[in-house]
Amino acid sequence: MVFFFAQSLSILEMARSVSRIFSGFRCFGSLPFGNTQLKTQCPSVLFRTTSERTVVQVLPSIFSRKPRDFSLPNSSWGEEMMRLYNYYNSQSEEATEGQEDHGEQWTRLPSYNRSLKYATGGVYLSKIIQSKARLFTRNIRDPGAAFEYVVFFRQDKQRCVCVFQAGHLLEGPPGHVHGGAIATMIDTVTGTHASLLSAPVMTANLNINYRSPIPLGSTVLIESTLDKEEGKKKFILCSVTSTDGSRVHTEATALFVSISISHLLRG
Amino acid sequence: MVFFFAQSLSILEMARSVSRIFSGFRCFGSLPFGNTQLKTQCPSVLFRTTSERTVVQVLPSIFSRKPRDFSLPNSSWGEEMMRLYNYYNSQSEEATEGQEDHGEQWTRLPSYNRSLKYATGGVYLSKIIQSKARLFTRNIRDPGAAFEYVVFFRQDKQRCVCVFQAGHLLEGPPGHVHGGAIATMIDTVTGTHASLLSAPVMTANLNINYRSPIPLGSTVLIESTLDKEEGKKKFILCSVTSTDGSRVHTEATALFVSISISHLLRG
Repeated sequence: MVFFFAQSLSILEMARSVSRIFSGFRCFGSLPFGNTQLKTQCPSVLFRTTSERTVVQVLPSIFSRKPRDFSLPNSSWGEEMMRLYNYYNSQSEEATEGQEDHGEQWTRLPSYNRSLKYATGGVYLSKIIQSKARLFTRNIRDPGAAFEYVVFFRQDKQRCVCVFQAGHLLEGPPGHVHGGAIATMIDTVTGTHASLLSAPVMTANLNINYRSPIPLGSTVLIESTLDKEEGKKKFILCSVTSTDGSRVHTEATALFVSISISHLLRG
Repeated sequence: MVFFFAQSLSILEMARSVSRIFSGFRCFGSLPFGNTQLKTQCPSVLFRTTSERTVVQVLPSIFSRKPRDFSLPNSSWGEEMMRLYNYYNSQSEEATEGQEDHGEQWTRLPSYNRSLKYATGGVYLSKIIQSKARLFTRNIRDPGAAFEYVVFFRQDKQRCVCVFQAGHLLEGPPGHVHGGAIATMIDTVTGTHASLLSAPVMTANLNINYRSPIPLGSTVLIESTLDKEEGKKKFILCSVTSTDGSRVHTEATALFVSISISHLLRG
């Protein structure tokens, strides 16, 4: 619904989002595949752009421990899930092994189950952090039971692809994935895509056409492409298909609107 | 997505659906608030209408133990959730305490976490039952952690109302409910509504407009009304509002299509 920041972004992106809150939403750059560069200087975390230099006061206490990246393979991933992960990941690995990245490679987006678990302090944070809160798509730790997915992004084509393996706890009709679970993944992938363009964004509309049911346990591809941008609006197209593309399970359009953080405070 | 039978219907309705599978989809009547009467005769379970009397052959082995009805209050339900539950439930209780029910009262719909857990046998069942599968909206047993909801139906007005308390595991943006979780509840309530008209139905389209975010832990009202029926198509309108109706969180339209069981087998 609201993507305060892309829910699959890296810990650096988390920190960047936190820093926005405390700095009046100044832009500190973006992910490595963005238009600007994001660099860090430890031990205190420092965001530096070419034109400004800002120490983020709250960051020294932000990282309590390394979070689990749910987008990495685990023992529950089936053969098809692993095959597709390796396919896209091998292309993104190439980018880091020498060639300069001009957005022509896939980039795997890490995925965590707590929005701001690793941040502390601040009046605003104390309002929005609930110690037990977990990201809806990562709220079950049992591998393979619910949402197993990994999102890759390719900047030059403005395209995201998500490999999604549906676990047994996502049941709607007997033996098949709940329509709400499919909507959840569509919201997640398109929302992640939109937030890479300009976070934070809010889902304004999801229009989903269900074509054929998805059996529990199966692996499918969820692809999102940027349709157009109009001011603060980002229109995204999305499809859910079998991994060979022969069967269309779901098609959707999504509209996201860039918002200010204050929108959430009015929530 | 596909509502094989209404996911919040009673164990009797489950049995009726199972019996359909084994009997070539004969109609054994419907729920007490349907157009026909449904009665039982034990020890073997019997469905009787005023004009016909039918023993359901598969039922003696169906009930292994009494399932948990997730639509009943538990310790996690907050004050507002309990107030609204009591409000609607008191009206439905009146219906059972004497007055003949002409659909002018609310009827609480029970809710279970396994579609066909309590049924055994049959070639078709062996294909669709996975022992670990759980209904997506009831897959977490920890009270208050995820989806706490109860659906009431009023036949004379063709209207469903759902009291929904959003738990901490449904997080999308920090402190707020994930758009996919909201879509899931909309699919659930409208799908339940459509299936009361003619199960089984399949979600063909969900068109969701998100107006304002829902804070985690809050209780909201989800209301669905029948817009129109055109042959196999059922058009349902849905809104998610604050409990006093002053704030619209989400508005949606849903289209469901009546299907045959074979649709799922092709899934």
